[in-house]
Amino acid sequence: MKNKYKRRTFIKTAGAGMAGAGLLSTSSCSPGENFTIKDMFIHHVFFWLKQPGTQEVRNKFEQALKDLVTVETIVDFHLGVPAPTNREVIDTTYSYSLLTLFKNKEDQDIYQTHPKHLKFIEDCQDLWERVVVYDTISI
Amino acid sequence: MKNKYKRRTFIKTAGAGMAGAGLLSTSSCSPGENFTIKDMFIHHVFFWLKQPGTQEVRNKFEQALKDLVTVETIVDFHLGVPAPTNREVIDTTYSYSLLTLFKNKEDQDIYQTHPKHLKFIEDCQDLWERVVVYDTISI
Repeated sequence: MKNKYKRRTFIKTAGAGMAGAGLLSTSSCSPGENFTIKDMFIHHVFFWLKQPGTQEVRNKFEQALKDLVTVETIVDFHLGVPAPTNREVIDTTYSYSLLTLFKNKEDQDIYQTHPKHLKFIEDCQDLWERVVVYDTISI
Repeated sequence: MKNKYKRRTFIKTAGAGMAGAGLLSTSSCSPGENFTIKDMFIHHVFFWLKQPGTQEVRNKFEQALKDLVTVETIVDFHLGVPAPTNREVIDTTYSYSLLTLFKNKEDQDIYQTHPKHLKFIEDCQDLWERVVVYDTISI
């Protein structure tokens, strides 16, 4: 991870220097795009909605998720639904998946008490009947 | 995703052009490092080992995971254990987490029947007592 971050810093610096020449803008290799997930703090949340078949509920929940993932300490995220796979070991019963990547545990702690996260819980907690969270750090 | 891949292609091309000037090597933005997970196929597996406290078992399982994630269609991966977080909704009971990212469902299908995956199952299936899989695609 340290090497990756050093590399990103180098690229940002190099990009800034080259932008004037029109070769590369800093946004081409900006943080959050140029990385591996190997050393991230993984925060994966699964939601089971009370009314997963109601489009109005789904629209509200999806918009709330999109607002939530704008929290600054989130490095990258994936908003999802069950894939069309089906084997005995696969849990396909959840309504939504929220996978978020953080640089470290401290950044995830900031997210937990962030106003946007608290608003998400307040606005949406009546929509779900079950939530399961897996927090994972690298071996 | 399409835009991201186009951007990566641009960066690689730009990087190659600039390498001669010593400003940026192509490896700085190589595929697999410069991406977002937003549109990936997420395959997240949780393992509960029969003997999670036995170091010999852990060593064997961790090596098997490291061999497994060399399957070519895996874009990126995260091998993990429960983070030191503890709230009511967090499941901290699993032994290992294997999070893999694929470009699409087809690439994950290739992984499922890949010889390295079949070898992993054969070598390790006696080590775990429970496996739960979440396959997720973007909303």
